[in-house]
Amino acid sequence: MDTNENYINRCFELALKGAGAASPNPLVGCVIVKNGKVAAEGYHKKYGEAHAERNAINSALRKGVTLKGAELYVNLEPCAHFGKTPPCCDLIIEHKFSKVVIAMKDPYHEVMGRSVKKMRKAGIEVVTGVLEQEAIELNKFFVKFVTTGLPYVTIKAAQTIDGKIADDKYRSKWISSTESRRTVHKLRAVYDAVLVGANTVRYDNPKLNVRDLRGRDPYRIILDKDLLLKPAYNVFKYKDSRTIVVTSIDAGIKKVRALQKKGVVVLPCKIKDGKFELKDVLNKLAAINIASIMIEGGAYVYNEFLEANLVDELLIFIAPDVMGSGITAFANKQAFKQFTRINYYSSGRDILVNLRKHVP
Amino acid sequence: MDTNENYINRCFELALKGAGAASPNPLVGCVIVKNGKVAAEGYHKKYGEAHAERNAINSALRKGVTLKGAELYVNLEPCAHFGKTPPCCDLIIEHKFSKVVIAMKDPYHEVMGRSVKKMRKAGIEVVTGVLEQEAIELNKFFVKFVTTGLPYVTIKAAQTIDGKIADDKYRSKWISSTESRRTVHKLRAVYDAVLVGANTVRYDNPKLNVRDLRGRDPYRIILDKDLLLKPAYNVFKYKDSRTIVVTSIDAGIKKVRALQKKGVVVLPCKIKDGKFELKDVLNKLAAINIASIMIEGGAYVYNEFLEANLVDELLIFIAPDVMGSGITAFANKQAFKQFTRINYYSSGRDILVNLRKHVP
Repeated sequence: MDTNENYINRCFELALKGAGAASPNPLVGCVIVKNGKVAAEGYHKKYGEAHAERNAINSALRKGVTLKGAELYVNLEPCAHFGKTPPCCDLIIEHKFSKVVIAMKDPYHEVMGRSVKKMRKAGIEVVTGVLEQEAIELNKFFVKFVTTGLPYVTIKAAQTIDGKIADDKYRSKWISSTESRRTVHKLRAVYDAVLVGANTVRYDNPKLNVRDLRGRDPYRIILDKDLLLKPAYNVFKYKDSRTIVVTSIDAGIKKVRALQKKGVVVLPCKIKDGKFELKDVLNKLAAINIASIMIEGGAYVYNEFLEANLVDELLIFIAPDVMGSGITAFANKQAFKQFTRINYYSSGRDILVNLRKHVP
Repeated sequence: MDTNENYINRCFELALKGAGAASPNPLVGCVIVKNGKVAAEGYHKKYGEAHAERNAINSALRKGVTLKGAELYVNLEPCAHFGKTPPCCDLIIEHKFSKVVIAMKDPYHEVMGRSVKKMRKAGIEVVTGVLEQEAIELNKFFVKFVTTGLPYVTIKAAQTIDGKIADDKYRSKWISSTESRRTVHKLRAVYDAVLVGANTVRYDNPKLNVRDLRGRDPYRIILDKDLLLKPAYNVFKYKDSRTIVVTSIDAGIKKVRALQKKGVVVLPCKIKDGKFELKDVLNKLAAINIASIMIEGGAYVYNEFLEANLVDELLIFIAPDVMGSGITAFANKQAFKQFTRINYYSSGRDILVNLRKHVP
């Protein structure tokens, strides 16, 4: 691995510290190198706060490092526009860095390459495309969100070897191993939201929070077209306004008020042929800055999203057990054909199957 | 790894050359070391022919090696009894070896340890238990056969992620990847027999032979209680008397004769409550020296063997596809609980799940 790749890898490590908090902004880490040694580091900690480049530069300045002639490494092209903070590329030019190494350009095509051009014009040596694929992978949520306006959608399921996610009494507890459940909690701390159907709330009464490890709770989204769920379920007990019930525009105002009183956000969405228009649902969730969603069940919700072609990725935990009769997770043969990137991981006694679409 | 383990590992390599041909005898390899160097090697090539020790000794003698004071390494305790060949332990004593290293003792309890004692009495230093677990694993077919009188039984299935082995028209072709099918052919060259139900013959018309690689064909066993299969299927076209139709004692003599005329072996077995007594079937197959069987389908046969608790191992290829409606491979929840040793392997785009019983 060469020097550029080494420092970009360090940027990735730093960037990941912002996972869960930086969204819908990208995960960005930055390393400043002077005379062949790391002089300062920074990352984007939280949406609305300073960018990684600014944090690294401030850290260097606090240490008394002269930035003139220094090198700056960053996994995403510095911003060239005034957002919540002034443009990082101006800051880099102002401090007279001699070299900037960038893993990937800004995927938002109106910005892409603009600050690279600006910095080159100012006489800075700019290297781009170092570990580019890895950088895109790291920011897969952000790339999807900024290029399509829709959140990145992952289906997570835990099934037995005979394809069942619950027995015929809808009981689904403890299909997967301790390790697999721990992985799910780690994922909840990273995805902006988890989403379930009303039946999953009814039969499992899940908390949908992050347990047994540090990490912020995701938004909890429940699809409940007819507002059939009583407000007594666990998901309605949070006081953080991060439980969202997606329902029909025609939902009864009394039921809506009862949920709102408990601090639940009610989001009316379009219905067509008695079903949610799922793209409208995703658009409305994107509008409140939800850039990534993990769908946790049940089978009906999985298959509706798959049929609507709105799924980016599947994570299927398969336990080496047989359920016999019960609820089958996946039924749509065609919808699976598009997931041609296949990876397997061991997860305790389970296997984790990861299916993704081909990236051109 | 110490010297003993090094040579025993070489014995394993040599032993495996006999896979498929040595059965129902064990796989045995032998290394003779003189003055710290390998002087000769041998393995048990074929049932009824010379044992590994004799082959190695003969090879050494042909090279003019003086065996007095040499060391002999072998993965299974040398025989102490007159079988198809005179006892190897006498041969070792006769040639005045100074040291014998053995991976595992003979699992047949009437023999176990007898030749170790005899060689020690003759003044030979005997080391046992070197890589013993690996040696037992290598000879799992033989160990099962010789300790229980029953063949080692493995279920092989290829299913989709929703647990289906065929669509609702019983079509099952090409569920698994090229790599997985190649693995199945490798296994067929090693198992003494493959076994399928009559419906698998009817719907798939399989050849059940070894293709696209070197290796001998296994016995082809078909369970056909009522002799409903017409003699026109592929499995009945071989002229090698290695296709066995297991049927009821009450099967019509005319149908039996029609099959026998084609060189098919007809094996009448006990029926109870309209089903085969599978233990009787296995006993009768063991009596004709079938020490290992791979069951290749269909679902009914899988579940009957599992319920009868006659399965030692499962190999389940899972393709990352969804079948939708179709035939489910496994339905019995209880029968799976005993398989607590779980391993996963990637196999092309499939995952291979290996389930085995706990070995105490």
